[in-house]
Amino acid sequence: MKEVVLGLLGLGNIGGGVWDLIREFGGETAKRTGVQLRVKKALVLDKRIHGGKEVPDEVLTTDRNDILEDPEIQIVCEFLGGEQPAAAWMLRALENGKSVVTANKMALSLHFDELRAMAKKTGAGLYYEASVGGAIPIINAIQSPLISNRIEQIMGIVNGTTNYILTRMAAEGAEYADVLKDAQRLGLAEPNPTADVEGFDAQYKLSILGSIGFHTRLHVDDVYREGITRINSEDISFGREMGYVLKLLAIGKDNGDSVEARVHPAFLPADHPLARVDGSLNAVYLYGHSFKDMMLEGRGAGDTPTASAIVGDIIQAAQNAVHPMPYMQETPKPVADDWHSKYFIRMKAKDAPGVLAEVTGKLAAESISVSAMMQKGAAPDGKATLIFITHRASEKAVQRAVKSLNPEICQVENVIRVEG
Amino acid sequence: MKEVVLGLLGLGNIGGGVWDLIREFGGETAKRTGVQLRVKKALVLDKRIHGGKEVPDEVLTTDRNDILEDPEIQIVCEFLGGEQPAAAWMLRALENGKSVVTANKMALSLHFDELRAMAKKTGAGLYYEASVGGAIPIINAIQSPLISNRIEQIMGIVNGTTNYILTRMAAEGAEYADVLKDAQRLGLAEPNPTADVEGFDAQYKLSILGSIGFHTRLHVDDVYREGITRINSEDISFGREMGYVLKLLAIGKDNGDSVEARVHPAFLPADHPLARVDGSLNAVYLYGHSFKDMMLEGRGAGDTPTASAIVGDIIQAAQNAVHPMPYMQETPKPVADDWHSKYFIRMKAKDAPGVLAEVTGKLAAESISVSAMMQKGAAPDGKATLIFITHRASEKAVQRAVKSLNPEICQVENVIRVEG
Repeated sequence: MKEVVLGLLGLGNIGGGVWDLIREFGGETAKRTGVQLRVKKALVLDKRIHGGKEVPDEVLTTDRNDILEDPEIQIVCEFLGGEQPAAAWMLRALENGKSVVTANKMALSLHFDELRAMAKKTGAGLYYEASVGGAIPIINAIQSPLISNRIEQIMGIVNGTTNYILTRMAAEGAEYADVLKDAQRLGLAEPNPTADVEGFDAQYKLSILGSIGFHTRLHVDDVYREGITRINSEDISFGREMGYVLKLLAIGKDNGDSVEARVHPAFLPADHPLARVDGSLNAVYLYGHSFKDMMLEGRGAGDTPTASAIVGDIIQAAQNAVHPMPYMQETPKPVADDWHSKYFIRMKAKDAPGVLAEVTGKLAAESISVSAMMQKGAAPDGKATLIFITHRASEKAVQRAVKSLNPEICQVENVIRVEG
Repeated sequence: MKEVVLGLLGLGNIGGGVWDLIREFGGETAKRTGVQLRVKKALVLDKRIHGGKEVPDEVLTTDRNDILEDPEIQIVCEFLGGEQPAAAWMLRALENGKSVVTANKMALSLHFDELRAMAKKTGAGLYYEASVGGAIPIINAIQSPLISNRIEQIMGIVNGTTNYILTRMAAEGAEYADVLKDAQRLGLAEPNPTADVEGFDAQYKLSILGSIGFHTRLHVDDVYREGITRINSEDISFGREMGYVLKLLAIGKDNGDSVEARVHPAFLPADHPLARVDGSLNAVYLYGHSFKDMMLEGRGAGDTPTASAIVGDIIQAAQNAVHPMPYMQETPKPVADDWHSKYFIRMKAKDAPGVLAEVTGKLAAESISVSAMMQKGAAPDGKATLIFITHRASEKAVQRAVKSLNPEICQVENVIRVEG
């Protein structure tokens, strides 16, 4: 039996969940792996307040150096969240030869290069399974069992809050603002929901998935981002009539010479595997040249699923002779500033025949053809709603065409990409 | 860069797929992992016939000892299929300290104890990701990222042939025998389909998944097995009317003191994640005490998905300091000979009122209550079809109740478990 000594930076929801899982299941885990985990120190802001866990007093500390500078501590688990001081402290732990396990997508995404370089330099491990998709072993899958693949596509539902909101909007025909309020009341959305609903959370996660999956450095700013705040119940119900389900997707594609990386609401055909991932579940769909299509689905958040991923990482950090460290090409692949998709265009207009000529004309001028059109009876203002679905077209061309439409003839209310 | 020398026992579909993946993608894999793979020898029956791959003559051999006894070969990949000589040769490779990578569920399931013991003795690794679920990293997930979990439930669609047949029966309202014939014509079912359609293939796979997931030794004979040959289009269509989808499931449950293990056709609610896994896709649903619910879905067969899993295993065998070896309790958990489920009972009868009294009476005598009943108009023989769905009940009680029904009043045509 090999004892491995841990230090926990933080003992809140996630840190407390890890503490519990080690305390309750550490004996069984040791039998299975030969690794006995011992938490030597846990950093808290105040020794009197630490989430109600029964943690012996000598384990608690308010001094990070009791963890970062203690040579007996082999693995440091970071549960602080946010960019700093998390990134600086992880860097210090790695510098001191300690492996680091983190769930912190922000600090990792922003400081991946330094952290990776330091880990390489000192031979320490850097593990972050819980940073994307919670308990879903997506990082491990990409870096180990699926390593001998050219991953061509990554498409994920990686934010549970927005998936919960969109699922309820679809089920109840409810509006965004109402569902958001209710989700906040239930604790399923933050009081300040921006990071989730504007897609920042998914943007960090895609930067991590894309970096390791495409073996290039995909910075967070390389990822196009659009949230769900402009989606209304009409978009969802009209999409459904046309056979589509709306999801906030994180989409990465390796086109060979360049990569695409974008987070935005998108319609999926109702029979796409991701279309049925509802509520706060997360899922990642992958396409690799050898394994073909695959989807991993599970709990993307929550203290026990996150703890499952973290303890899994700790055991690997303790056992691995070679820590998995993504190989990234020296010259990162350029990130495409245009891409191809189908488009759902919703607009209001008074006179349908005139609109048809205007829309099809302006789209044709950008070489975009229409695959379906649907008209909905006039609203109280005398205007009808028109939905166009295009064939595959260039994003830029569609944006240009939409901008060129005469606002006296039709008013575009939303443009949503159709994927899958 | 570390060179790792391989020997391939077999160069058919799977062996050839591995050869191709290493030849075409080995350079990139080496950059990512630091492991350069070299196939030194590949065993063939006849040097002139080896699947049309361009394999240098000096790599081909017809003598297994050129692989099993060559001290330079570090990892042996077994692609022979069947129980023997595959098991004996894998054992010999392990005895010689070589790690073994296999896709052979039969040899593994039947000889898991000896192979595992020999691997432990010599410190060699035993890897078998491709033996269950093809490219899906289910073995890896259970043994590594999800290791710190009490896995309570495993429910899998692990046989692509039967899933393809059931999917087509459902989509087309077609009968089993017709779809089977067509699947055979298309090469999606074997000329002798018994191993697939009678559930033997799934039985081997569940014995492996259950053994590693529940940390007990689940022998193939411990797994109850029933195939899909008695399913007809009426079962599928009546089930659908009641909101169910029919799948051949491999079900394992850890009930604490005992385990359940069974392969049989089962109805799932249409919104269960496994219900939408169609065609030849495979998927495994897991429930763990910490990660909660999870599903992994992908290609369960085919040369390139299988090669993806095998090369993933080879890299792990080359890199791991500690080979994952399932811990199994010294006293295996008893396998339950009864279990609880809901039941779909389809029968024919002439006189519905008399049938209702007979069926509900006989079920009540076994403490089984009915949750739904559906009657379908009389067939040309003047008999009506009746479907009963029970509440959760003991398997044995249901079997006794069904046997006790008076065949002059009603004739039971099928009993199908309802899970999920």
